[in-house]
Amino acid sequence: MSANPVLAEASRGNSVENRHRGAAAIVDASGTIIASIGDLNRPIFPRSAVKSMQALAIFTSGAWDQGLLDQRELALACASHHGEAVHTEAVGALLAKLGLSENDLECGAHQPTNAAARRTLREKAEAPTQLHNNCSGKHAGMLAVARALGIDPRGYVGIDHPVQQEVRNAIEAVIGEPLTVDRCGTDGCSIPTFAAPLKSFAYGFARMATGEGLEPRLAEASQMLFDAAAAHPHLIAGTDHADTRLLGGFGNKLMQKSGAEGVQCGALRAKGWGYALKCDDGNLPASFAMLAGLLEAHADLGEAQAEVLRDLKHQTLRNVRGIAVGEMRLAETFSSQWETRDGV
Amino acid sequence: MSANPVLAEASRGNSVENRHRGAAAIVDASGTIIASIGDLNRPIFPRSAVKSMQALAIFTSGAWDQGLLDQRELALACASHHGEAVHTEAVGALLAKLGLSENDLECGAHQPTNAAARRTLREKAEAPTQLHNNCSGKHAGMLAVARALGIDPRGYVGIDHPVQQEVRNAIEAVIGEPLTVDRCGTDGCSIPTFAAPLKSFAYGFARMATGEGLEPRLAEASQMLFDAAAAHPHLIAGTDHADTRLLGGFGNKLMQKSGAEGVQCGALRAKGWGYALKCDDGNLPASFAMLAGLLEAHADLGEAQAEVLRDLKHQTLRNVRGIAVGEMRLAETFSSQWETRDGV
Repeated sequence: MSANPVLAEASRGNSVENRHRGAAAIVDASGTIIASIGDLNRPIFPRSAVKSMQALAIFTSGAWDQGLLDQRELALACASHHGEAVHTEAVGALLAKLGLSENDLECGAHQPTNAAARRTLREKAEAPTQLHNNCSGKHAGMLAVARALGIDPRGYVGIDHPVQQEVRNAIEAVIGEPLTVDRCGTDGCSIPTFAAPLKSFAYGFARMATGEGLEPRLAEASQMLFDAAAAHPHLIAGTDHADTRLLGGFGNKLMQKSGAEGVQCGALRAKGWGYALKCDDGNLPASFAMLAGLLEAHADLGEAQAEVLRDLKHQTLRNVRGIAVGEMRLAETFSSQWETRDGV
Repeated sequence: MSANPVLAEASRGNSVENRHRGAAAIVDASGTIIASIGDLNRPIFPRSAVKSMQALAIFTSGAWDQGLLDQRELALACASHHGEAVHTEAVGALLAKLGLSENDLECGAHQPTNAAARRTLREKAEAPTQLHNNCSGKHAGMLAVARALGIDPRGYVGIDHPVQQEVRNAIEAVIGEPLTVDRCGTDGCSIPTFAAPLKSFAYGFARMATGEGLEPRLAEASQMLFDAAAAHPHLIAGTDHADTRLLGGFGNKLMQKSGAEGVQCGALRAKGWGYALKCDDGNLPASFAMLAGLLEAHADLGEAQAEVLRDLKHQTLRNVRGIAVGEMRLAETFSSQWETRDGV
């Protein structure tokens, strides 16, 4: 297996301490590779970066038509939220609307991603609940799917449960290839996650952005999900998070979602291009530096957008006492790594 | 820069999710490369993996001869401890013996590494103190150096403070080359950390293990520090940690210490070989899988040692609900990557 290029690096003082390799693809809805770096055919686990694809099941199941969710709840279904009060209260309210509760979630509990929310729990000597799980909005959306299908929600995280079959069918429909059991893993929140070639996810996001090649209901649902993310950036992640800042800065021009282990997926909506990016070693901050390089090279930037990218291209690393010790940054050679359509 | 080989990988289900590259060197006290993988000349920040080198200043300053520390406190000076009660109480006692307190530490506070210790603090709604910092034992040792030198300890973390000069001189003496300001960074606990070629640290540990090429007082001090680590493995790290298990399993045959950002250093004491290993991307669990491969190939193993290595070669990865989702493991091609003395 040939080595993907170094796309990001972490410095300490004047020296490089860590090096991060990766691959990236920008693809249009016809499947043409607009630009690429590294191995596009290697299967990756997309993890949370494809929550908007998974949320299509809310539409295919009829949950949306039945009025089980509103736009904010669509955003939460696409979110890796930070467990702030605005997130946990909204997910709790959706569950109540479905006649369910936190006990019906099967995602497990973890400390909230947001530091202030963690501190609040600590000061109250309270343990986190499943509502604090960054995936609780997605899981509440999956429970809405079960309700719409009129089936027992219990065990909805299982690969053979009708909810996960609905989710899997939706992803297959947009990426245009089968998700096979031999490439199935279990995600952090216990649902199945399927590996597929990097470029296939970029292709799927291009089709969601344009509707090209999709059934009308999937095309319409894709727009509504991307619009929900753009309208509620804070619900997608949380205070100061890159996804929230990017969605806020780019508005309707961008769909963007990070996933665990260094995955970034989304679409340059106005251009009709989808993208997918994976840091080989799973480092998430490194993948954000790479994403900034991708967007800088291929998105149309105003000042607001450029400012967000600058912060991601040079992320200050601080030690225990808050002293700046180095930075996670885009590798200087990044821009020279692109193979463009003209160059291929 | 050529790519180091993939030495460890993280799986999810039946697929590989992340790939981790790295380099490793085993060197004897004459400087001969016994075996190696990847680029040995690339400078690395050794971070906490060289705490036993830094602790030589306890001897060169006269702190040991003045009776300021005992063997357990030597072990703590070499430790990245987990903030368990046994660690924080011992460091507090050492500080009191020096006429100092937690307030004199300049390492900063962070949550204890040990999960039970974190839970205890949370249940008491207490914030962690500087004693919980994994480096507090090293810092207490540095305060002992200041006492022995008869100087004001304040600012002892600064690069120009006599304490850090003493530490730097000791490391230079064992690795046999200068630590230069242009390669200096600030460590997580705010002291200087100097990058030097990977192989130089392996060479330094070989010299510490054998005493060859060192002044007698450094040779003797090295043995005492390695013996302290072997005698008190739990003080070096904590419950269930790989360093503690390795030191416990190998006893006096091994010196082993991990460092932040995927560094492993130590010595096969009976053979007189030092080793150094760095995961390119800074992933610490991956570096432990690589270390297991190194020790399996080059150390003499009994059943107790082999068992510890098996656990490091295949580290089960669990999700939020504790479900096994994959493993961090030594790459299958690892053993074929070695270049041995005969082969060079």
